[in-house]
Amino acid sequence: MIAIDLNADMGEGFGAYDWGADDILLEYVSSANIACGFHAGDPHTMRKTVGSCLKRGVAIGAHPGLPDRLGFGRREMAVSPEEAGDFVLYQIGALQAFVKAAGGKLRHVKLHGALYHMAARDERLASAIVEAVQRTEPELMLFGPSGSKLHKAALESGVVFVTEGFADRAYLPNGELMPRNIPGAVLEHSEEIVRQAVSLATGGLVQTLCLHGDTPSAAEHARHIAQGLLKSGIPIEAP
Amino acid sequence: MIAIDLNADMGEGFGAYDWGADDILLEYVSSANIACGFHAGDPHTMRKTVGSCLKRGVAIGAHPGLPDRLGFGRREMAVSPEEAGDFVLYQIGALQAFVKAAGGKLRHVKLHGALYHMAARDERLASAIVEAVQRTEPELMLFGPSGSKLHKAALESGVVFVTEGFADRAYLPNGELMPRNIPGAVLEHSEEIVRQAVSLATGGLVQTLCLHGDTPSAAEHARHIAQGLLKSGIPIEAP
Amino acid sequence: MIAIDLNADMGEGFGAYDWGADDILLEYVSSANIACGFHAGDPHTMRKTVGSCLKRGVAIGAHPGLPDRLGFGRREMAVSPEEAGDFVLYQIGALQAFVKAAGGKLRHVKLHGALYHMAARDERLASAIVEAVQRTEPELMLFGPSGSKLHKAALESGVVFVTEGFADRAYLPNGELMPRNIPGAVLEHSEEIVRQAVSLATGGLVQTLCLHGDTPSAAEHARHIAQGLLKSGIPIEAP
Amino acid sequence: MIAIDLNADMGEGFGAYDWGADDILLEYVSSANIACGFHAGDPHTMRKTVGSCLKRGVAIGAHPGLPDRLGFGRREMAVSPEEAGDFVLYQIGALQAFVKAAGGKLRHVKLHGALYHMAARDERLASAIVEAVQRTEPELMLFGPSGSKLHKAALESGVVFVTEGFADRAYLPNGELMPRNIPGAVLEHSEEIVRQAVSLATGGLVQTLCLHGDTPSAAEHARHIAQGLLKSGIPIEAP
Repeated sequence: MIAIDLNADMGEGFGAYDWGADDILLEYVSSANIACGFHAGDPHTMRKTVGSCLKRGVAIGAHPGLPDRLGFGRREMAVSPEEAGDFVLYQIGALQAFVKAAGGKLRHVKLHGALYHMAARDERLASAIVEAVQRTEPELMLFGPSGSKLHKAALESGVVFVTEGFADRAYLPNGELMPRNIPGAVLEHSEEIVRQAVSLATGGLVQTLCLHGDTPSAAEHARHIAQGLLKSGIPIEAP
Repeated sequence: MIAIDLNADMGEGFGAYDWGADDILLEYVSSANIACGFHAGDPHTMRKTVGSCLKRGVAIGAHPGLPDRLGFGRREMAVSPEEAGDFVLYQIGALQAFVKAAGGKLRHVKLHGALYHMAARDERLASAIVEAVQRTEPELMLFGPSGSKLHKAALESGVVFVTEGFADRAYLPNGELMPRNIPGAVLEHSEEIVRQAVSLATGGLVQTLCLHGDTPSAAEHARHIAQGLLKSGIPIEAP
Repeated sequence: MIAIDLNADMGEGFGAYDWGADDILLEYVSSANIACGFHAGDPHTMRKTVGSCLKRGVAIGAHPGLPDRLGFGRREMAVSPEEAGDFVLYQIGALQAFVKAAGGKLRHVKLHGALYHMAARDERLASAIVEAVQRTEPELMLFGPSGSKLHKAALESGVVFVTEGFADRAYLPNGELMPRNIPGAVLEHSEEIVRQAVSLATGGLVQTLCLHGDTPSAAEHARHIAQGLLKSGIPIEAP
Repeated sequence: MIAIDLNADMGEGFGAYDWGADDILLEYVSSANIACGFHAGDPHTMRKTVGSCLKRGVAIGAHPGLPDRLGFGRREMAVSPEEAGDFVLYQIGALQAFVKAAGGKLRHVKLHGALYHMAARDERLASAIVEAVQRTEPELMLFGPSGSKLHKAALESGVVFVTEGFADRAYLPNGELMPRNIPGAVLEHSEEIVRQAVSLATGGLVQTLCLHGDTPSAAEHARHIAQGLLKSGIPIEAP
């Protein structure tokens, strides 16, 4: 029986600033990636978000990013593999303290923004990050794109890798995302998105689907995807 | 047989900036309090400093401070007990990841600067911080001033408290530090400081002595104190 | 002929984070206090907000705060008068560059949050800040509470002081704000608020009224106050 | 009669952290590039450094960098031209407030670290930065490498450009720096460095020489260069 995980980034507010639609997304996701205080998030937000996840039975992951709060971790920075590994280790540790203090268990790590993309294509960065994850907690799973350098590094190190897909993006026949500048690359209609979600879930290449939380229609899409998957007999479960 | 711990703050550089005389102090101390990235320190410095401590057999503690890098955590800030607890939890977790990744064990927590003083006199802050420490790791010891609110909160919660004294400061008969504005409050001559160290170590009120690392004579004083204690037959050991 | 100024804090977003209802408030205010990158704001937001004010003919002021982005400048910090003066000078200068580059003129300074309150009651802090304002640009006006230490320091230095009142707060007979913990201290009904605005404007003690931008009813209150003043024949004008 | 400017980066400490050998370099330089609080520096350090320059009669410039204090502005970041322009404008304005408050005049701008290199080779970044400089103060000079995109953008906009050379670096026949990985690219002996300084000063391609302040031999090299130039009859003067 095929199952699929639904994940979303959470706890990306900062101090007085709110972000996203965490409360609504928590109704649909099976995994949450919680910001750790570098690109977004702060100690109070981390504690609160961890608590919400535990109450809902949503699996908790760390969502480490680059130390660029002004750029929300979306700008690439020329960091060395060693620096990247240290950034990831620091952030996982910080989140883990809140998870442990609340009686939970940290399950996975998903990189954020520019760090996600950099680790997908840079072998040395990928290895340093996989090593950092493994050293903190060998059982932590790593979420990321199938076929990426991060995927490869995880396989080589024995870290469980969970391949991620996007329900609102079109894919090329080779399994890669269609570049955003090609017409039709970003799906906008609910039916298309649901169809894509079901197709990715049953196709076997993808084990978790990422739900976006920062668009006006985020909550609506999340609901449609969750309902569409269940209607197709695909259970939503954390890996 | 009486033994005494010698502790010093370490890893308080930041990025390109150096601080203190860590390498020299590591020859004399039995415990190191490592900055965690709020008032000072950063992921790279934390990893490096943890490594140096493990190589030397120096016991590792977390040294959390207020989120005020510009003020080096020395300025008091009106933080709530809940905020203070979250700050401490975050920082302990971050350091713990580096300690664990290096195969070590986090042993204690010592607050930094303004947070040290605030938690010594504010009951609610002290309780929130003790609770944060206990929730991360119930076996963590807490270093701090004897008779303080932090001491009281630790006793009530069952957290092991290690009382700290200062070899270069004069004490009042009631065990409190002589205020700095009174002549003779700060000891400057090596013989005085060594005499004070031996007296505090044998007096029984103090279980760890703090060595300062950021003064020109820091290294010299550290050597004299360590030699003076050993000459008096007092072993230097982490608690 | 009596006129009154309406002011509001603006440009208090940060990076990807939005804040307040700047676009709506700009329809009603005659003066804007623009965040300068310490408690909130960033270079891009400052440029954008300066541009919006110039387009609308709204007078531009600097809104410097404490270097505590996580706390949105609302937590008091133990800063020295010299530090406070330097913080204010830095922030005024940074904003002034954007105002000048856009062809405008910086008109006033209004302190933010904890710094506003600290400078209102601490004479040395107030003097240092007034001196910083005066040294940057002797013609800059200072907004603040009537009868405060800041008011006194401005009078002594020859800096023009614009007394500020709050339309949604009740006042004691002596002109001080009724403390928030007393029932009736915060006005909630539009009629009350409009009545209070007109009363403050005609009473002569207050030269500018502060409109809040971060509450759900902010836009509505702003509209009612502006309409109420105009209906009472009181022109809304920057000082 | 040929004259040459000697410039050095200054005020690059932060809070409790010291950096460089400002006091010694101030004896030899004619221009100082003062850090503005992004990659290094803070309000207090800026005020202090401006004061030292004015006392010594050293010309003051702004030294803006990327918002990456942890990386000391040395790591490239994917910032847009608009972002870069706003960062530069903000930092120039902040420093200008201190210069003006102290009765001085801001004379030039020299970019720091990664921003220096990015603007040298990226045309759009260069144009945005030149525009920012020009909008703050049309008379500000810009220091940078001869033949760079920044040089070109300055020429096109009518901003005075001062070409910079390095006394401790070998040059290729085409006027470009010899890459660091080629043996002999970095000059280490005082005589070589002095010879190079005199050669650059008399060659006419270079109008200002950069003195490094963060190496152990910085002070010694500075003294030798200054003495060597004077001995060769080349006056040291700010442009």
